[in-house]
Amino acid sequence: MVRGEGMVHVYTGDGKGKTTAAIGLAVRAAGRGLKVVMIQFMKGQVTYGELLPLKKLGIEVRQFGRPDFVNPGNPDPLDVRMAQDALDFAEEVIREGEHDMVILDEINVAAAWGLVDVRRCQDIIRSRPPHVEVVLTGRYAPDEFIDLADLVTEMKEVKHYYRKGISAREGIEC
Amino acid sequence: MVRGEGMVHVYTGDGKGKTTAAIGLAVRAAGRGLKVVMIQFMKGQVTYGELLPLKKLGIEVRQFGRPDFVNPGNPDPLDVRMAQDALDFAEEVIREGEHDMVILDEINVAAAWGLVDVRRCQDIIRSRPPHVEVVLTGRYAPDEFIDLADLVTEMKEVKHYYRKGISAREGIEC
Repeated sequence: MVRGEGMVHVYTGDGKGKTTAAIGLAVRAAGRGLKVVMIQFMKGQVTYGELLPLKKLGIEVRQFGRPDFVNPGNPDPLDVRMAQDALDFAEEVIREGEHDMVILDEINVAAAWGLVDVRRCQDIIRSRPPHVEVVLTGRYAPDEFIDLADLVTEMKEVKHYYRKGISAREGIEC
Repeated sequence: MVRGEGMVHVYTGDGKGKTTAAIGLAVRAAGRGLKVVMIQFMKGQVTYGELLPLKKLGIEVRQFGRPDFVNPGNPDPLDVRMAQDALDFAEEVIREGEHDMVILDEINVAAAWGLVDVRRCQDIIRSRPPHVEVVLTGRYAPDEFIDLADLVTEMKEVKHYYRKGISAREGIEC
């Protein structure tokens, strides 16, 4: 990675592959010796299939959230608090600049649902050291994030087997 | 992964994150102890950033192709031959059923450009052992692949910094 070119990526939309694409980016970056951290908003102490191999590659993962789903219309104060803790941690990590890539997983949803302040997120991302790459994932990416981003991909669900009545399977979905 | 539920995933569209999402799937699957192979169509001996960490996780990667770009209108016979070698290899791997997940990276493009026969691809995928998960990536996924798939995601490019005149960077893009 060329120092001073840290971009902002957004992966959004209703399709599969947003967090998965971020994991792929993390793995590629790690393969080049870059230091990566993934900060997960609204995700609890679930042992996601991806965590173990990421750790094996030296990719740090920090989860902030509870195993329960967040209520979009009326989020529990604890969920708000945990999302803000995640953002505080993200701010610190980004400011320190020791990580070349900072993935803010599901921050789009956290911002869209009002768990974190969009403007504060913008400020944190804008004031990053120039080499820091930031990756934002999740549905409902606010327009402010789109404006800020260098690269925006919308994952569109064209077809999904949930619709055939098959639920998520361990190791493939999560 | 529940045996007997091997699905077909398609990642297509003009946006970023198709191969990257497949890498993420591979990493997640590996994290669950599943055996994964990624077969890359039309990709040469480029040392992509992702290869080293994938190997470290026990994910096998096989590239079939040359470093040069394939000419869509008039592909070089060597490119056709290499794509067919890739498909032969895929057929063997899928039939043997020793891998739980077989990623056919860029096969959509190879099929759309006529380097491999769509009907033969369909036959290979349809006759897989029931536990084998198949992941097809690349732009221009033929309708036949969409029909066959359980899960289709279109990556739509909403915004891209290439448009600002910045080229791909090692370790982030490839």
